[in-house]
Amino acid sequence: MNYDVIVIGSGPGGYVAAIRASQLGFKTAIVEKELLGGICLNWGCIPTKALIKSAQVFEYINHAADYGIKVEGKGEPDFEAIVKRSRGVADGMSKGVQFLMKKNKIDVIMGFGKLKGQGKVEVKSADGAVSEHSAKHIILATGGRSRELPNLPQDGKKVIGYRQAMTLPTQPKSMVVVGSGAIGIEFAYVYNAIGTKVTVVEFLDNIVPLEDEEVSKALARSLKKQGINIMTSSTVESVDTSGEVCKVNVKTAKGVEVLEADIVLSAVGIATNLEGIGLEEAGVKFDRGKVLVDDYYRTNVEGVYAIGDIVKGQALAHVASAEAITCVEKIAGLHVEPINYGNIPGCTYCSPEVASVGYTEKAAREAGYEIKVGKFPFSASGKASAAGAKDGFVKVIFDAKYGEFLGAHMLGSNVTEMIAEVVAARKLETTGHEIIKTIHPHPTMSEALMEATAEAYGEVIHL
Amino acid sequence: MNYDVIVIGSGPGGYVAAIRASQLGFKTAIVEKELLGGICLNWGCIPTKALIKSAQVFEYINHAADYGIKVEGKGEPDFEAIVKRSRGVADGMSKGVQFLMKKNKIDVIMGFGKLKGQGKVEVKSADGAVSEHSAKHIILATGGRSRELPNLPQDGKKVIGYRQAMTLPTQPKSMVVVGSGAIGIEFAYVYNAIGTKVTVVEFLDNIVPLEDEEVSKALARSLKKQGINIMTSSTVESVDTSGEVCKVNVKTAKGVEVLEADIVLSAVGIATNLEGIGLEEAGVKFDRGKVLVDDYYRTNVEGVYAIGDIVKGQALAHVASAEAITCVEKIAGLHVEPINYGNIPGCTYCSPEVASVGYTEKAAREAGYEIKVGKFPFSASGKASAAGAKDGFVKVIFDAKYGEFLGAHMLGSNVTEMIAEVVAARKLETTGHEIIKTIHPHPTMSEALMEATAEAYGEVIHL
Repeated sequence: MNYDVIVIGSGPGGYVAAIRASQLGFKTAIVEKELLGGICLNWGCIPTKALIKSAQVFEYINHAADYGIKVEGKGEPDFEAIVKRSRGVADGMSKGVQFLMKKNKIDVIMGFGKLKGQGKVEVKSADGAVSEHSAKHIILATGGRSRELPNLPQDGKKVIGYRQAMTLPTQPKSMVVVGSGAIGIEFAYVYNAIGTKVTVVEFLDNIVPLEDEEVSKALARSLKKQGINIMTSSTVESVDTSGEVCKVNVKTAKGVEVLEADIVLSAVGIATNLEGIGLEEAGVKFDRGKVLVDDYYRTNVEGVYAIGDIVKGQALAHVASAEAITCVEKIAGLHVEPINYGNIPGCTYCSPEVASVGYTEKAAREAGYEIKVGKFPFSASGKASAAGAKDGFVKVIFDAKYGEFLGAHMLGSNVTEMIAEVVAARKLETTGHEIIKTIHPHPTMSEALMEATAEAYGEVIHL
Repeated sequence: MNYDVIVIGSGPGGYVAAIRASQLGFKTAIVEKELLGGICLNWGCIPTKALIKSAQVFEYINHAADYGIKVEGKGEPDFEAIVKRSRGVADGMSKGVQFLMKKNKIDVIMGFGKLKGQGKVEVKSADGAVSEHSAKHIILATGGRSRELPNLPQDGKKVIGYRQAMTLPTQPKSMVVVGSGAIGIEFAYVYNAIGTKVTVVEFLDNIVPLEDEEVSKALARSLKKQGINIMTSSTVESVDTSGEVCKVNVKTAKGVEVLEADIVLSAVGIATNLEGIGLEEAGVKFDRGKVLVDDYYRTNVEGVYAIGDIVKGQALAHVASAEAITCVEKIAGLHVEPINYGNIPGCTYCSPEVASVGYTEKAAREAGYEIKVGKFPFSASGKASAAGAKDGFVKVIFDAKYGEFLGAHMLGSNVTEMIAEVVAARKLETTGHEIIKTIHPHPTMSEALMEATAEAYGEVIHL
């Protein structure tokens, strides 16, 4: 068939591109080798949030007395039911994308898509059948997968990636999580909360190493208090899976330590899916696992575009979706501005949550800014006290000279819902003064942003 | 003693005024007749949020199986412990204000303050001792109390106001809540959630009558589903408290209905505390329960100011605090802009929560705007699905001509933390386009604001 737009890959980059293309009047098809919605909906953002919610409910039950609620006996996690709920949520979202494809009259072509040059795409379906389609515009959105380290090969049983981690047949008694980015920390939180003994091993000096150092250190304290064993500046050298439990050799500053665990979860980032999609054949340039694109996601080959994890920029669902819309609107000839990669929020949904956007304090200093830093702890927030969520703080960084809002770093309950305010305000070129004079509702956690900003300017009230 | 600034009343208007005054170098005193922090901290915003949290935890326990958590037996609310926790949170906050007064070197004068004219304030303490103080600037921040209707006099035992409602000695089996503003609805939610049979009686056609009609109607559906009996377009004509249970005569469209209830909670708004504070003696003008002030809270009498519930504008804690800061900064000669009362968020913390700012759809039409309306239901949100919180929606209203963000109306989990983004964006004079192009983190509830806005402009993805 001949289309205006063919999108290869149906994750939050691909399916959003297809919908926007259809909205703008393009005859559109989407190619998917496995499940509509890609990793995000099926094996990432969504099902993990379902697991996290179960863990949080379990924690509420364990702490019910703190809130004046009596519980006879004890709560107990039903691991199978927790996983089943998570899968149900994921399935529901995937069906939602199916509905959206239908509603937007987008052809869904199941199979593995490959560029054939000259605007052609070959799709090989699971049963081996091959079809060929053509389009004026082909958007690659093939996404990523769990990265495998040479000394940590995944067998999918004892040494696993994120996919297996959310569908284990039984709850492991113990787990070593290798890597402490969002994925590693979220699984560490969930499994620890429901009673698995968890150790996190991080190569760098701090967990969630992309975050502001104060956030990393405070989160580490909080997770340790919850019972998670955290080893930073440490490397997993090898895993012996021959026995009943895994023996994990961890190199620390003090020498090699051997950890025993039922399961080792490798969460050391993602690898991009560039293999076999015809980049070389079509002459599309790529470098170190990323397709090379301009500000509007055009590759060097006319009519071929790439978005999402396979291009520069943060490998996050909301980035992929934004790139999708930017790419398609540019194709349609709309006036569209390039994405500002300096204003992308990042979230980790453990308890307490982490959310941030912009420069860390260290990065701002390294970039040569003279800065004003403000901080407001949730221990001083009325809403946090009432909600029993006093852990964490909001930290803000402003340019001392012009008042530019350089970055915000949040740790605490609900902060993943609070960071959008900063993103919007930064997009609208706010100054600190305007945040201070924005009347935040009382009592909310969101007041902490106003207070942290006021703190930066010597006007904080509640400290 | 002689001061630069004396503040009468230590609620979120008064204590914030005192702190800001002290920050700006004024020698400051604060007069309080009862408890530092006023109604908000001791009998309002904060302790109610603590009660609400207990109710929510209880609901999680009752629905634990939905999240894959087994609970032996059942959860049971320990009413005394719930109230005790709430009082503990309030006491902690009040002590916090005490600390802030000390830290900011603000003299706390306990007693009932009264203007004596010529910059003098008389304070009568509980033991009858009278002292006199003077100041160049006197700020009245005496706040409000539960309004009593003539046909619904409060005896504090069976017919009560919000104060008694948060410290009842035992949990009532049944309760009639008269009035469905934020206070009424929050108590109705809490008591219903922990097992009291609750009826809400509202004089107007919709509950939370200040909200957008779609929010009111959807919230009513949700609360009814939770088991609350809601009677709108109804008036309580009288209450017979002579028997063991109250007999509440409610006039409805269909005639008079008699409800029986252990407790009747009157939540029909607040009355301002203007009595005995020396307004007449000092010649301060007031009208219909509000002190008359200009944009900087100056009364007609030089050196006398009024803020908070006792002046025009929404009677909300965050409004009082903002007025306090505006008033004091103006006194100090800082450049300060008047508060925009059209950009004040309002929140109701039941489940689902309500949050809004700006024009309702009806008000926008009545003001003559040609509008674009967008709506996004949480049933289409991935985060809401994962969190088991699909109830509610975000509704946005834009001026069709210039793109001005006229209003936002939210119903759902966590929306009280989401509304600040709208307040900030409106302050920064956003257009719809800029909200659509603000990259919200995925998966969050906050994406719904972006999607609702996109819906208004025909660009929504997930609908």
